Amino acid sequence: MGRNLARNFARNGFRVAVHNRTTSKAEALVEEFGDEGDFTLARSLEDLVGALERPRRIVVMVKAGDGTDAVIDELTPLLDEGDIVADAGNAHFADTRRRHAALAEKGIRYAGVGVSGGEVGALEGPSIMPGCDADTYAELGPFLEVASAHVDDEPCCTLIGPDGAGHFVKMVHNGIEYSDMQLIAETYDLMRGPLGMEPTAIADTFREWNGGELESYLVEITAEVLAHTDGETGRPFVDVVRDAAEQKGTGRWTVQTALDLGVPVTGIAEATMARSTSGDTERRAAVREALAVAEDPAGAEVSVEDLAAALYAAKVVSYAQGLDMVRNGSTENDWDVDPADLARIWRDGCIIRARLLGDIADAVEEHPDAPSLLATPTFAALVADRLPALRRVVAAAVASGTPAPVFSAVLAYVDALRAERLPAALVQGLRDYFGAHTYGRVDKDGSFHTLWSQDRSEVDA
Amino acid sequence: MGRNLARNFARNGFRVAVHNRTTSKAEALVEEFGDEGDFTLARSLEDLVGALERPRRIVVMVKAGDGTDAVIDELTPLLDEGDIVADAGNAHFADTRRRHAALAEKGIRYAGVGVSGGEVGALEGPSIMPGCDADTYAELGPFLEVASAHVDDEPCCTLIGPDGAGHFVKMVHNGIEYSDMQLIAETYDLMRGPLGMEPTAIADTFREWNGGELESYLVEITAEVLAHTDGETGRPFVDVVRDAAEQKGTGRWTVQTALDLGVPVTGIAEATMARSTSGDTERRAAVREALAVAEDPAGAEVSVEDLAAALYAAKVVSYAQGLDMVRNGSTENDWDVDPADLARIWRDGCIIRARLLGDIADAVEEHPDAPSLLATPTFAALVADRLPALRRVVAAAVASGTPAPVFSAVLAYVDALRAERLPAALVQGLRDYFGAHTYGRVDKDGSFHTLWSQDRSEVDA
Repeated sequence: MGRNLARNFARNGFRVAVHNRTTSKAEALVEEFGDEGDFTLARSLEDLVGALERPRRIVVMVKAGDGTDAVIDELTPLLDEGDIVADAGNAHFADTRRRHAALAEKGIRYAGVGVSGGEVGALEGPSIMPGCDADTYAELGPFLEVASAHVDDEPCCTLIGPDGAGHFVKMVHNGIEYSDMQLIAETYDLMRGPLGMEPTAIADTFREWNGGELESYLVEITAEVLAHTDGETGRPFVDVVRDAAEQKGTGRWTVQTALDLGVPVTGIAEATMARSTSGDTERRAAVREALAVAEDPAGAEVSVEDLAAALYAAKVVSYAQGLDMVRNGSTENDWDVDPADLARIWRDGCIIRARLLGDIADAVEEHPDAPSLLATPTFAALVADRLPALRRVVAAAVASGTPAPVFSAVLAYVDALRAERLPAALVQGLRDYFGAHTYGRVDKDGSFHTLWSQDRSEVDA
Repeated sequence: MGRNLARNFARNGFRVAVHNRTTSKAEALVEEFGDEGDFTLARSLEDLVGALERPRRIVVMVKAGDGTDAVIDELTPLLDEGDIVADAGNAHFADTRRRHAALAEKGIRYAGVGVSGGEVGALEGPSIMPGCDADTYAELGPFLEVASAHVDDEPCCTLIGPDGAGHFVKMVHNGIEYSDMQLIAETYDLMRGPLGMEPTAIADTFREWNGGELESYLVEITAEVLAHTDGETGRPFVDVVRDAAEQKGTGRWTVQTALDLGVPVTGIAEATMARSTSGDTERRAAVREALAVAEDPAGAEVSVEDLAAALYAAKVVSYAQGLDMVRNGSTENDWDVDPADLARIWRDGCIIRARLLGDIADAVEEHPDAPSLLATPTFAALVADRLPALRRVVAAAVASGTPAPVFSAVLAYVDALRAERLPAALVQGLRDYFGAHTYGRVDKDGSFHTLWSQDRSEVDA
């Protein structure tokens, strides 16, 4: 990905010095693609630093974690005050904050740059989410904006906020990517099982959907993957792939961070855990065998139209949860991130790019104070329209025994938000009973405790 | 709680020296309860240390986190080699591991002791989950076992494993407590809404349930809380309590740790996030208003008997997930925790005490190699019997717009485990498409990649 990002800058007319710890890799890049632009081969970090104008702009793309620290440690002694180090890897935002602070003490400017788009995106224009100080962005941003994807003339790159803000939103982007993919998978599973459709027919459906409100990169490539036939067996490709996924990295971080922030991102959480469940093949085999005694679920009625509407509504809810998390994270860290900006730069270049994101950007921009995307008029109406379909889809999953954890979770979330009263009041009562945790009252302010083991009178707490 | 634990030891005939940073609190304890046993008032840590036989056994109960570190820092210089410091607070197991290692270097023995039972349990006999070395347990365990709850003559206390093992399982205990309470709350909500029952009638139902397979402390006190009338308004108590709960501490830690371990604890995750959703009153109000345009959900058919069966099945699934997490955590940390032991010491004293736990202990002991509680013959049969009821309950929640996130999540989890094939295969295909993440095949070992942007042939990865 680093190599493609370097080519991207060079193709856009920037002079690029390239360095890799394994010199042959940098040599191969220059040899193979040298005619794409103005490359300088740097055989050492000293050469690299020597080849750059000041303030130097150095983009680091190495394995997140210790690898990044190692490069920074080696690089910083060679730099001058005001130089810029930009980490374009998938760093945890807390690491980026730490590095930003540490380098600031040495007068080095640090940017944590989220980049999404995979290898192809890196070359042809990714979505770029830089987190850095404004003066750093003034030096770095123009280059990133040129290299990024564009919608009309707008770059899919803008200053997200200081220090860890860029990597934070990239993390949330990836979390949303988890839930998007799991929703697509659940939709496919309901077509395959209850609707009895073949992969090629499902591929056709997704291709058709990609011409409408569901238009998105992931829906597009779902059609490609489902239409693909395995060369070796002649079977549908999706049937020869092992149904075991892993969760790690950014999906996991998103949920863990959301818990710290107290933001319910149930769509992302269920998607992340669905991967773990799928990967636990020993447990699956044992439970499948033991539970073979259970009654077979009945068939279920659901239509392709319901699935389309439910998929759209569920995506919106999952995006709403992700944006809530960005809002709370921004407040918690004093970042001042604009969720509308974010939706705009996600419109192209990144994995979750979708027509929907333009509408989200508009809605959030028009209603900046709406505490949820679901509270904006546009999306309230869109979700309200599709809620009966979402209900039918979850009902069909439940009746047919098709696991649909993310569809189920986002519906429960919407119903919880809609409820006049939640049974959390009972939970609070129980907590007060066994642990004197106290509770609030609906009719007055304050904190109260009932003397449960005495006369059950109420006292101020 | 510390005060009640001290009284518990004294009532059981042990000589107890008591110290509190605020001396008046320790004085008050001795003054009020001095006739319960042999107390020594220690006005300073020096006095405390001087009052104890060697090896000293010091139980620390202070606010988890920095508070614990501060006490340890002050205490250790006063101690001799072989003395024992036992932290009975709700420490994070990673902190306990760190403290255990740091004190071991000074020859001080450290125990991380999980204690559950609330204030009453601390006095009358809690469930105690000690994590320490075997030689430490030999000195400390006999005291803890006497002070713990008992089932027949068996103490609800046993050595869980070394260093952080005790605090780890206490954390999981609390996570299960979150899901138990949320399941009870969802059951109540379905009775209150779709079934139209009044709190007193629901209280009666829970009281009746407490005489059967659902017998447990939380079901018992649910009846008490629901039967309670608010003294000020004459309304049902549960209707005057604010329906906003918080998630923090051990519930959050459980989910975060489960994600690190790659264990899906979807019941606990949804319960934790349901608290966040309930507490987010601004977002709730805005979405409720905006989504008022949505069609009202229909009524739903569900019976009290279905709810009882579903509650039991859902509890079992949630316990299964918690025990999976204990198993994986034990392996990861080399603790050798026996899940059967755990179920046994949870049978009484703690908040999640329940008749069910005796059956779990038996099933796990009989089938120690079953990779899930759901794969043991007893619980496979119990869950299989109740699966249709669980399905009807979730269907009713979905149809009636009653949020039931934990019921939904555990059903989806069971259906995922039961599935012959999961759509994770499609997720793997998508990941290979956009990120060259590779996939496994069902028909041979290895790791593969399809050249999606070329001729779509497959290569070894």
